[in-house]
Amino acid sequence: MPWNRKDLVAIEDLSVEEIETVLATTASFRRILDRSVKKVPALRGKTIVNLFFEPSTRTRVAFEMAAKRLSADVLTMDVKTSSTTKGETLRDTAQNIQALNADMIVIRHSAAGAPLYLSRILHIPVVNAGDGAHEHPTQALLDIFTMRQHVGSLTGKKVAILGDVLFSRVARSNIWALTKLGAKVMLVGPSTLVPHWFTHMGVEVSHNLKEALADADVVMLLRVQNERQASRHFPSVGEYTSMFGLSKKRASWLNPKAIIMHPGPINRGVEIDNDLADSARSVILQQVTNGIAVRMAALYLCAGGRPENMTASPA
Amino acid sequence: MPWNRKDLVAIEDLSVEEIETVLATTASFRRILDRSVKKVPALRGKTIVNLFFEPSTRTRVAFEMAAKRLSADVLTMDVKTSSTTKGETLRDTAQNIQALNADMIVIRHSAAGAPLYLSRILHIPVVNAGDGAHEHPTQALLDIFTMRQHVGSLTGKKVAILGDVLFSRVARSNIWALTKLGAKVMLVGPSTLVPHWFTHMGVEVSHNLKEALADADVVMLLRVQNERQASRHFPSVGEYTSMFGLSKKRASWLNPKAIIMHPGPINRGVEIDNDLADSARSVILQQVTNGIAVRMAALYLCAGGRPENMTASPA
Amino acid sequence: MPWNRKDLVAIEDLSVEEIETVLATTASFRRILDRSVKKVPALRGKTIVNLFFEPSTRTRVAFEMAAKRLSADVLTMDVKTSSTTKGETLRDTAQNIQALNADMIVIRHSAAGAPLYLSRILHIPVVNAGDGAHEHPTQALLDIFTMRQHVGSLTGKKVAILGDVLFSRVARSNIWALTKLGAKVMLVGPSTLVPHWFTHMGVEVSHNLKEALADADVVMLLRVQNERQASRHFPSVGEYTSMFGLSKKRASWLNPKAIIMHPGPINRGVEIDNDLADSARSVILQQVTNGIAVRMAALYLCAGGRPENMTASPA
Repeated sequence: MPWNRKDLVAIEDLSVEEIETVLATTASFRRILDRSVKKVPALRGKTIVNLFFEPSTRTRVAFEMAAKRLSADVLTMDVKTSSTTKGETLRDTAQNIQALNADMIVIRHSAAGAPLYLSRILHIPVVNAGDGAHEHPTQALLDIFTMRQHVGSLTGKKVAILGDVLFSRVARSNIWALTKLGAKVMLVGPSTLVPHWFTHMGVEVSHNLKEALADADVVMLLRVQNERQASRHFPSVGEYTSMFGLSKKRASWLNPKAIIMHPGPINRGVEIDNDLADSARSVILQQVTNGIAVRMAALYLCAGGRPENMTASPA
Repeated sequence: MPWNRKDLVAIEDLSVEEIETVLATTASFRRILDRSVKKVPALRGKTIVNLFFEPSTRTRVAFEMAAKRLSADVLTMDVKTSSTTKGETLRDTAQNIQALNADMIVIRHSAAGAPLYLSRILHIPVVNAGDGAHEHPTQALLDIFTMRQHVGSLTGKKVAILGDVLFSRVARSNIWALTKLGAKVMLVGPSTLVPHWFTHMGVEVSHNLKEALADADVVMLLRVQNERQASRHFPSVGEYTSMFGLSKKRASWLNPKAIIMHPGPINRGVEIDNDLADSARSVILQQVTNGIAVRMAALYLCAGGRPENMTASPA
Repeated sequence: MPWNRKDLVAIEDLSVEEIETVLATTASFRRILDRSVKKVPALRGKTIVNLFFEPSTRTRVAFEMAAKRLSADVLTMDVKTSSTTKGETLRDTAQNIQALNADMIVIRHSAAGAPLYLSRILHIPVVNAGDGAHEHPTQALLDIFTMRQHVGSLTGKKVAILGDVLFSRVARSNIWALTKLGAKVMLVGPSTLVPHWFTHMGVEVSHNLKEALADADVVMLLRVQNERQASRHFPSVGEYTSMFGLSKKRASWLNPKAIIMHPGPINRGVEIDNDLADSARSVILQQVTNGIAVRMAALYLCAGGRPENMTASPA
């Protein structure tokens, strides 16, 4: 199982073998999370800096939790309160963190390419926790891991990605991962959010929700991200919901075994019906739990850990 | 010593035996805090999430300190910077934290009932760190613990609670605890802040400070909480101080052995005279120290620890 | 090697022997930072509270990192979100932290003298992380440590301190340290920022950059701190740069072996030319790394650790 990367920046860069390495490592850590003591000593003595230039609960806490489960120390730098407000460059901030003797950086940034840039100028590992509308690789890996738990091999399976694809790093990372693993991907939503040119990524584009859901094994909802839209790409939230919100009626078009996913946080009553979010079809909370294991795997592998050396004894 | 609760939500729910269990466990942890190494391995490998929807220094830090003294990992989520600003429901936030594999949640919320609600929908323990004007159970427990150190058994003792009772969760939790333990409670302050209907809780109400202080064993001051008042319930802070502030002269009405308590942070010169806050009568800082031990006990018991199994060896 | 202080408040207070004790302890910790596992158990079981009344990335994270490398627990209190906004006094905040059973306080405050005040009223150690325009002792110690790595003994060496000296606690702490250790200090900058009365501290004052740089062994740049200036002391940032910014041309006036230092965060293109900041002459990132070791030494010594007892075995 190969892993020779210092960094995890983009799913686009990964080979199928590398994706499988992360998923196999995730599976090992996932079993640990079912134990009473969920902590392993894998990264004891290491310090990870979470460098977050965008507000986040879920991802920041998930990375902190993953780091602590690996016995690493974590320092979180929320950059609203930091020196960048004094005009320091991203490069200087990052080089300072490296000079502070951090062992690894987890970065979220509104600019696509920020993690790639840091991975090139730093000798310590850099893990991308979301960069602009570019990629969110650990999200895609946890999504893939969760899909496999429910539908098995993804080869030939159909995944419908529904909603605000245009601005979604989650969608982009999933498109890369799913197509590499042989799944059929159909993007669906209003043409302003799902433009035809996405077909160049090897996926289908549809503006017909019934068609998209008909034979899907997985439907992945995206957040309606008002806060990331510079201009409005649909008339109103109500309009979006009436056209593309996943209602109970529309969910009845799905294959009985199809699962519903969402990267969270969900807008109940907007992109998904309230009851549907809590139904047996919904694997949203399983995604959250798997996200810890995926981030443990990402941190462990980038820190130089090897799958075959994983210590499963409690910390 | 019985403790079969998953959660600590309200003093109102507790039996006298359960209160005694917490206090006995507190006493054990309190002795540990006098050692050079104040850390025990009781919750090693567990992760506690502090979910704070209201700003707080004292209580947040006290719970963090208690968790670290028990060797637990702590993640603090200050919800101003979190996903709830994106419209996520309390239920979804809490279920996500549980799905993140947290072992326990400590919650402070401006809405009375939020901790009870979470305790019912989550399978992990929930500890109430203050909900609206409802309850603040660990504060009452540390107050009781501190009173007992000074006045012994509370049966038949008189506790005067002075000030902004109407908006005070500290007062409500103390009223429940003190009446269960057989103390006589007298509430005192302006009628707008200490309405007569509090007598239904089994306490006396007075608007005469001299009468209230005369034979009190304990006088518990409350903060003048301008920030929690939707409308003004007294003409001005100066007016409050002139009528109900604890001045040196008024303190001379007290029994020589009576102690002065305050949940903090204190407004010097408002509800208490500056010198009086630092006098030998004042046990305010002892309350703070006891607060760590009480929170250690609350976290330990809700996590399933049993008083008879307490590990007192250093971490 | 003597160290009988509870606190580290000001370089002005330290004897040459005490400075040497900190530097020797720093050297030991600095070696540990080059190991793969950079953590030692020196302060295991101790809890350090970072009490920051001013925003800071670098210093806060450096102290957190130092504490974690010593295996201490750290609680950071950023006072914008704390009770002081409710009107609590500094004294009450600090006494509460002590009552919370913290083992040590690291304080940054905009008021000169705040750390000294706390050191007198608290029985736990207090470390000054910067107070107003007074002192920033750990910065000066890391600067001295870095200078010695490059120029050896400081006796008779010339250090030019360039820029906003008037408002700089970094400059004041360095002046005290450098003069105690026998270095010649020349302050240089516009007369509004480098007034003549600094000569009373035993240093030279110059307004001629070429003269100041000519025979310097070290040139220490200071930040142009717009945010700390109540009124403007120079016409504009552009004007400052044109007169006193360290350009490549001006750097050519330096002795070939002279090093360039800066406490960070740097304003590229303002007080220093962009390329120059990354040149071989610049030791700015070495200062950052040495800063961790200095803070480990400061925390260790104030906590009662003795140089001869240092445990170098991994945590």
